[in-house]
Amino acid sequence: MDSNQMTQENETFMEISPADFFYRNRDLAGFNNPTRALYSAIRELLENSLDACELYGIPPKIFLRLSYENGDNEDALGSTYQIKIMDNGSGVPSEYIPSAFGQILFGSKYKLRQVRGTFGLGGKMAILYGQITTNSTARIISSIGKQEFYEYNLRIDIQSNKPEILKRKLHENKDKWHGTIVDFTLTGDYPRAMPKILEYLRQTAMINPYAEIVFIDPRGRLYRFESVTSKMPKPPKEVLPHPYGCDVETIRRIINVTKCDNMRCFMSTHFHRVGNKTAKSFLDYAGIPFDLHPKKLNSDEIVRIVQMMQSFKDFLPPDSSCLSPIGKDLLTEGITKELNPDFIYLEQRDPSAYSGFPFIIEVGVAYGGNTPVNPSFELYRFANKIPLLYDEASDISRRILNEKKDWTRYKIRSGDPLAFFVHVCSTKVPYKTVGKEYIADRPEIEREIRNGINSVSRRLSRFLSRKISIEHEQRRINLYKKYLPKIAQFSTDLSPRRRKVPDVEPLLESLRRYAEENA
Amino acid sequence: MDSNQMTQENETFMEISPADFFYRNRDLAGFNNPTRALYSAIRELLENSLDACELYGIPPKIFLRLSYENGDNEDALGSTYQIKIMDNGSGVPSEYIPSAFGQILFGSKYKLRQVRGTFGLGGKMAILYGQITTNSTARIISSIGKQEFYEYNLRIDIQSNKPEILKRKLHENKDKWHGTIVDFTLTGDYPRAMPKILEYLRQTAMINPYAEIVFIDPRGRLYRFESVTSKMPKPPKEVLPHPYGCDVETIRRIINVTKCDNMRCFMSTHFHRVGNKTAKSFLDYAGIPFDLHPKKLNSDEIVRIVQMMQSFKDFLPPDSSCLSPIGKDLLTEGITKELNPDFIYLEQRDPSAYSGFPFIIEVGVAYGGNTPVNPSFELYRFANKIPLLYDEASDISRRILNEKKDWTRYKIRSGDPLAFFVHVCSTKVPYKTVGKEYIADRPEIEREIRNGINSVSRRLSRFLSRKISIEHEQRRINLYKKYLPKIAQFSTDLSPRRRKVPDVEPLLESLRRYAEENA
Repeated sequence: MDSNQMTQENETFMEISPADFFYRNRDLAGFNNPTRALYSAIRELLENSLDACELYGIPPKIFLRLSYENGDNEDALGSTYQIKIMDNGSGVPSEYIPSAFGQILFGSKYKLRQVRGTFGLGGKMAILYGQITTNSTARIISSIGKQEFYEYNLRIDIQSNKPEILKRKLHENKDKWHGTIVDFTLTGDYPRAMPKILEYLRQTAMINPYAEIVFIDPRGRLYRFESVTSKMPKPPKEVLPHPYGCDVETIRRIINVTKCDNMRCFMSTHFHRVGNKTAKSFLDYAGIPFDLHPKKLNSDEIVRIVQMMQSFKDFLPPDSSCLSPIGKDLLTEGITKELNPDFIYLEQRDPSAYSGFPFIIEVGVAYGGNTPVNPSFELYRFANKIPLLYDEASDISRRILNEKKDWTRYKIRSGDPLAFFVHVCSTKVPYKTVGKEYIADRPEIEREIRNGINSVSRRLSRFLSRKISIEHEQRRINLYKKYLPKIAQFSTDLSPRRRKVPDVEPLLESLRRYAEENA
Repeated sequence: MDSNQMTQENETFMEISPADFFYRNRDLAGFNNPTRALYSAIRELLENSLDACELYGIPPKIFLRLSYENGDNEDALGSTYQIKIMDNGSGVPSEYIPSAFGQILFGSKYKLRQVRGTFGLGGKMAILYGQITTNSTARIISSIGKQEFYEYNLRIDIQSNKPEILKRKLHENKDKWHGTIVDFTLTGDYPRAMPKILEYLRQTAMINPYAEIVFIDPRGRLYRFESVTSKMPKPPKEVLPHPYGCDVETIRRIINVTKCDNMRCFMSTHFHRVGNKTAKSFLDYAGIPFDLHPKKLNSDEIVRIVQMMQSFKDFLPPDSSCLSPIGKDLLTEGITKELNPDFIYLEQRDPSAYSGFPFIIEVGVAYGGNTPVNPSFELYRFANKIPLLYDEASDISRRILNEKKDWTRYKIRSGDPLAFFVHVCSTKVPYKTVGKEYIADRPEIEREIRNGINSVSRRLSRFLSRKISIEHEQRRINLYKKYLPKIAQFSTDLSPRRRKVPDVEPLLESLRRYAEENA
């Protein structure tokens, strides 16, 4: 079936392209059936659009439309849909458009930087899925704001992993528009995918309160998620590799491209947070001469450097200033808009690091309002500003919640309208699957999440104590309210001098004031 | 850092090779830290060796040795180990050795056939991990049993995804040896990985009772897993794609290579279980002329064929004769050898299919003997004859066990020494991760596993009823045994004619016989 098959000794060896690999194993990337594929396609395109805006400090305005193709309509077997997304991001330079949208493992995401996209796969998988289910071509229009921009019609040649350009059209750009439009058809099952898609959009709006997202669904209903703020977190920065995260391959690659002619320059130029002083003390520690030419390092010396990098104690920890968390205030606004809770508390933990990658955890808790009731508490999981909706049971945050036994210490009862929020920001989020469903358990990350949950729970417990005590006083006051008038009446009746019944209202009022002041 | 970087408009686009992708994201394939990587390396190499034997009907004899490198010894930070595996499999033709061991996405696993390897990645990831942690080269010796064979020293050029051959040596092969030897160094943590590695070997021996595996660990201890049988299941066969599993890309690829000049020939030549008659009735149903030339199909017609393939009801179900399950008897032998249970029952379910892929589930239950006690019951998970040890919580079988509420119906109590076995065989196991940790929930597979667990539980309940009733009778008899002699003595003492105390033994014996017969 494949053109590059080779047969000998009854066994067939062949090479497959990366596109072919992910085509054969699309379950790995979340494209396993029409329901999930529709959800994944929307999600991947939206995340690319958000990245294209946010990396350049542009407040995102994203328009997304899903419509039945060719008058098709709801159909149990999976209908054909047209998907169209339009953003106001930075755009893709026209010479890169074909590869950026039609070649797997080509893109701008392969660096150490906090972005939503990690694998440089998702958008292309969506286009590939459209192609294999509907034989469609994708239309891509992208402009970086120059005088003109291009429109492409393309498909992916899966066996060779190359874009195949079917049409290219030049447009004038008088008003210097920048952004990207992607448009293609795919098989999906919107009726079944709808709940997850809407939940995904709702949570995306929560964690990106500065984004405006408009979604028109196949039934013509419009969902508008308005931005609640124009403040944006500062864009993430790219960082050099930290020595603790380096392996032999990293060092070899740096040796290949370095312009340094001695090891001191080499160490202080190519690594995150290694300056002249640290470079010197590291080389002393590792027993490597300062003036050795990096290109002269032999195999054993390279291995030695890597081993010494792991054991050297004086490297500075990774710098979190390259990260772009949401921040307490923005997160509070985003969540409040959606849940309108009686109580909300957000906390940004101190930066930390695992295996040379910096990370920051943001943890929150909300109580009451529209917070859903869940016996084991609602959990909203986010990573680099994207919601994670699948495989919650395997996620480290859910496991921490489930293992926690001391809820009563915090006055928290199962069945309370309570939600936790956990947001992991990192230059490398340790996902367990290409579909970005859940976060693996790294001890450093686990510790921060656990401490964060304990800390916000303590804040919540103060609110709950106050709430419980107010409720208790209210019940007491209600009791007085019921019986005091009767007692007053009774005493008056008994009194030999039949006077007017005394007014109990001032007494009740002072009880109320006392209760409020002491709650 | 990369040589193929291109910069414009402040953004860097680049292409990375598949080797580079999996190097950057090695967590996806189970190579995330020295402990897990050592486990994954052993596992992937062993699975390749088993496949290399079993696909050709050779009873596997595999020798595996892990040793500290350069007098290195146990070390908290991760030591360097030498790993060496030797099998008696079919061998790799010498011209394919460099690519088969030094190029990601090259191999013999890319077909519809029940094999352990699925992604054609694992062995190469092990070599790649060795290379990036110890800068080592891999030594590969492989022979297909001809007069001579080659020994290679190679490394993977990760950036270009090409094998780099450092040395090649010809050996004479007078005794026509066939098999493969792989040998390289890597960083690992044996003390921590040991429990999982030994458990993996133990379960591998259970599910491959015809394999002989010898493992020498770094401390010099020898673990020998003897084969308990010389019977082998018949090797799996490769199958054509089933119409229910076809998408537009499949059809396009077949059109590219077909020699048929009409659609009837096309349909009856290239698809699993489609003969002349089914081809005819399908083309009638889809409204496609019999004599249309396949290469003349236009885009809409291809989409139409795929849609019609999904909705046509008269395709024969996929044929499970291509699968190679273990079978009741072999599995019973394998499990008995390890657990030596008081009761064991194995069942092979009828073949079934999901999305055009045939599958067979084998389910078993064991009670007592060395079966471990686990409040929610021990679960042994296997897929295509490999044990799955990680991420049990996400696996469909564990979820079925946890959701099952009617254990008492089967006389099963939490805390019983009880183990379930679930083995999924398929031409395509729906793994959720490249690391092959757990099986995704496909409704068809879920149903078969659920029914299988119910069915073997019913068999167990008969054994347990009998056991409970025997225990009950035993308690009754013990009571008689204690008191009958006393009653006999007492009666004798009371009797006016002081005779010999009567013998109660015959009475007890008849009670015992009665209990046994009626249990």
